[in-house]
Amino acid sequence: MITIALAKGALLNDSVRSFAAVGLDFAALLEAGNRQLMVPSRCGRARALLVRNADVPVYVSYGQAQLGVVGFDVLQEHQMPVAQLVDLGFGGCRMSVAVKASSPYRRAADLPAHCRIASKFTRCAESFFDSLDLPVELIHLTGSVELGPITGMSEAIVDLVATGRTLQENGLIAIEDLFESTARLIGHPLSLRLDDGAISAVVQQLQALHHRAEAP
Amino acid sequence: MITIALAKGALLNDSVRSFAAVGLDFAALLEAGNRQLMVPSRCGRARALLVRNADVPVYVSYGQAQLGVVGFDVLQEHQMPVAQLVDLGFGGCRMSVAVKASSPYRRAADLPAHCRIASKFTRCAESFFDSLDLPVELIHLTGSVELGPITGMSEAIVDLVATGRTLQENGLIAIEDLFESTARLIGHPLSLRLDDGAISAVVQQLQALHHRAEAP
Repeated sequence: MITIALAKGALLNDSVRSFAAVGLDFAALLEAGNRQLMVPSRCGRARALLVRNADVPVYVSYGQAQLGVVGFDVLQEHQMPVAQLVDLGFGGCRMSVAVKASSPYRRAADLPAHCRIASKFTRCAESFFDSLDLPVELIHLTGSVELGPITGMSEAIVDLVATGRTLQENGLIAIEDLFESTARLIGHPLSLRLDDGAISAVVQQLQALHHRAEAP
Repeated sequence: MITIALAKGALLNDSVRSFAAVGLDFAALLEAGNRQLMVPSRCGRARALLVRNADVPVYVSYGQAQLGVVGFDVLQEHQMPVAQLVDLGFGGCRMSVAVKASSPYRRAADLPAHCRIASKFTRCAESFFDSLDLPVELIHLTGSVELGPITGMSEAIVDLVATGRTLQENGLIAIEDLFESTARLIGHPLSLRLDDGAISAVVQQLQALHHRAEAP
């Protein structure tokens, strides 16, 4: 049986829809009041493991799940040994540098050396500011990163921006993007090599589905 | 004005009640539908900053909040430079090693060398197993740690146990405790030294309140 790690939260609806389109029905995950973290597909050929976004590549890299769906942002931050198989297209957002709208900074390179940057994605932020050759002090937060500039703890933040509404509500503006992120299908390299065809069938169907969606 | 960092989640109700008892009313934080992360007390002498549990010592160590309420577990895991002022008594739980009830392990020292331990608290776990001189492989997860042994990814977990219900529902049992945790009042060391009396008044009232609660 194939085990597929799915991320709780914003990616879940589209993840379930993607697998439904290739014959794996995990709709039970979306039922209100579902507390189960392991749910078999209706056909019995696969099961879904419902975990936090950041934990998807952990389960896949240890082979506890052969496939997983996770944001590209998580893959960039955690650099786990997993195979990136398909760009699923949904869950689009940008990893951006944002500052107070009232600040004078309009590009990341405008920020003063040794300024403080708050982020949930400190590894992404570190490599970005390294590439600018701008030394900064990184402050790791686990949520509500927009409070960094509001409280005066940091000059800027590096965070995921989808609609931009959270930034706007907090008087912040994005001034530069590190990269764009979408949901990715990832796989456990060894499981893919030893696959008897069941895993690659799912991967190929999702690939075909996405290429059709991309065609004009 | 004093800024007090409060943790979202399980500690929030009791935190608000504690400060209400010393004259700082943050009840607005508990209103259904509250989206504000900064809320002034009704008297205007203080404001609360509503952040994630793990972020409380970050805001306090940078002095953006002069006081904060956070679980001892977070202080043990992150070792930030903050002053521990009062054991507030609520939010009691244990940091425990847990295994499958069906496993043969009944003490942490029974676990095989180089076994895998899944945890949100990998630093606590590491220093505990170091103290046993037992080499283990730590797997950092951000949630639903009980899936570690269930999926076979890890032999054991190190996690917070309050009622034990989550363990029981997942067929796990706690076999050894690392430490007990309760909510702590913490302070920014420099703010405490430079205090004109406003901060120490709050600290002393909370101290007195808690000692009364402890008396028979």
